[in-house]
Amino acid sequence: MACARLAALRSVLLRSIGASPRKIIWPATSRPHPALGFSSAPRLVESSSSMAAAGTEVSCGLLAGRHDAYDGIILDPESIPQSPATFTEALQVSMAAWRGAGVKGVWMRLPPTHAHCIGHAVDAGFEFHHAEKEYVMLTCWLPRDVPSPLPPNASHQVGVGAFVVNEKREVLVVQERLGPLRGKGVWKLPTGLVIAGEDITEAAEREVGEETGIKAKFDAVLAMRQAHGVAFGKSDMFFLMALKPEPGQEKVSFQAAELECAAWMPLDDYVALPTHTPLNLRLMNSCLAYLDGSYRGLWARRVQSGFKATQDLLMFGEQSLSGGRDEDAWLGLVK
Amino acid sequence: MACARLAALRSVLLRSIGASPRKIIWPATSRPHPALGFSSAPRLVESSSSMAAAGTEVSCGLLAGRHDAYDGIILDPESIPQSPATFTEALQVSMAAWRGAGVKGVWMRLPPTHAHCIGHAVDAGFEFHHAEKEYVMLTCWLPRDVPSPLPPNASHQVGVGAFVVNEKREVLVVQERLGPLRGKGVWKLPTGLVIAGEDITEAAEREVGEETGIKAKFDAVLAMRQAHGVAFGKSDMFFLMALKPEPGQEKVSFQAAELECAAWMPLDDYVALPTHTPLNLRLMNSCLAYLDGSYRGLWARRVQSGFKATQDLLMFGEQSLSGGRDEDAWLGLVK
Repeated sequence: MACARLAALRSVLLRSIGASPRKIIWPATSRPHPALGFSSAPRLVESSSSMAAAGTEVSCGLLAGRHDAYDGIILDPESIPQSPATFTEALQVSMAAWRGAGVKGVWMRLPPTHAHCIGHAVDAGFEFHHAEKEYVMLTCWLPRDVPSPLPPNASHQVGVGAFVVNEKREVLVVQERLGPLRGKGVWKLPTGLVIAGEDITEAAEREVGEETGIKAKFDAVLAMRQAHGVAFGKSDMFFLMALKPEPGQEKVSFQAAELECAAWMPLDDYVALPTHTPLNLRLMNSCLAYLDGSYRGLWARRVQSGFKATQDLLMFGEQSLSGGRDEDAWLGLVK
Repeated sequence: MACARLAALRSVLLRSIGASPRKIIWPATSRPHPALGFSSAPRLVESSSSMAAAGTEVSCGLLAGRHDAYDGIILDPESIPQSPATFTEALQVSMAAWRGAGVKGVWMRLPPTHAHCIGHAVDAGFEFHHAEKEYVMLTCWLPRDVPSPLPPNASHQVGVGAFVVNEKREVLVVQERLGPLRGKGVWKLPTGLVIAGEDITEAAEREVGEETGIKAKFDAVLAMRQAHGVAFGKSDMFFLMALKPEPGQEKVSFQAAELECAAWMPLDDYVALPTHTPLNLRLMNSCLAYLDGSYRGLWARRVQSGFKATQDLLMFGEQSLSGGRDEDAWLGLVK
């Protein structure tokens, strides 16, 4: 490669590179910094403008991509050759150029059509980062003297459980057809996993509807439980929620693929079952305190996270607020 | 393959296969059913015994593995040939045998040493499921008439934020050196991501210590926030916690790689900052209610999840209990 071309590439690449050490390098394809509460609006402006500046195409016979605001290159999946031989050659040339230009992290997203390139990427020094059905994400941290600060992949699955009590003080319970509880005759509350992109409150309402046919609305988060080493070695965050059923739903159906049966059971009978674990007993205490009115649990409300249009689900417990318009006024959010 | 050998394989494979439709098929390498509250102890006994029964080695010149209790095969990574040609041949023969034996889901974990086999697995009908630095997990759902019910991979990253107020009613705040807030002079609470396997309470204490040098202990979960489409398209669950600092820590240091500065700021000054988003204002309300004693937030306590030895982190809010020995007695857990 001619020196002039490399110099031009270097100047493009270095445009957003600073000298300070950086601990976390986010790919520009996702939000650069997770919106972890107490962040402020100006970053959205900067994020937007720096993305635009960083979006300059980098393609000089190399693998095409754009550099992000974190000294990294995000390769364009569309431009990656499908032929392993062509891919390998382009990658070799590209990595030399990236090193020369001070690039640190390289993000490469390979779809199933490029699965035969994965081995060659690993040979070149790339590591697996995460995968979805649609792709494997590989990363390469180029600096030899600095440990990789690339961010980890998702760490938790999220589960929900529903405490649903009707006007006769009966609790909605199920027996599972599958898994380790099969054939044990153990009654339990309806539970399930949150689907990607689903609010936990929606997940609880959906699971109750799917499993038992009962229409019920979220009312409160009562308790949470974090456990480690659950599915594929990941952690599990479980939310126990109270839901209010529409009145007059005597008949309980059940999802035959998942359940042996489902029923309304007198609450006292459920509490007295001998099958509860220590964790269950403690969760039960939250349920009973909620029922007798001594514990409200947490409210849930969709709230604008910043000055952008999207809303996030906020769960909060102070009793002075109810999530209504009065609260907006109190917080100075409406005039 | 001789008919007798196939029949023997089939009988081994079918040993734990039932006729009922199944919605979720878990690999036996992880817990078959996530411990989503309100499950009971007997399943652990069954899980253990069924794992033993299902652990029988299946290796008749095919890819070796063991079948799980969910009609699935978990391939043994150690026994998978590294040569793509040998791998492809063995996979072809194996898949025919598995189909004949009624196997449904196949789980294949390929380490970087086998990266050149990934393309051939995809050619044979396998799909990416998830990946860690150490491996790509591929799955194949064999039945042609039933949609795949294989469970999803992890859906959330988990973040923490810390509300730390000292005896002078000053709040611990930081300015970030990296990311979109860089150079904006925005004060915020210390935040960070939970490390794999870490309790959220530990994560909050660690982040405060790393970022500011202040020693502080978890006291309460004040609020949570769920957001979607955050990192790599996954969701984010954020926990705001109150921590109590050890008294007399006047001096605040700061982690130069991540922060511009860190300081104790009079609480009223922090509340009055013009940079708070609507979400921040609502979170602030939980903080102020906690400080004035009108809101306790949620306790956190490690609790035995079942009758096994491990403990999970339970967070609960009812005010009648404090997480002490009295509570154990109340729940009948101690004599």
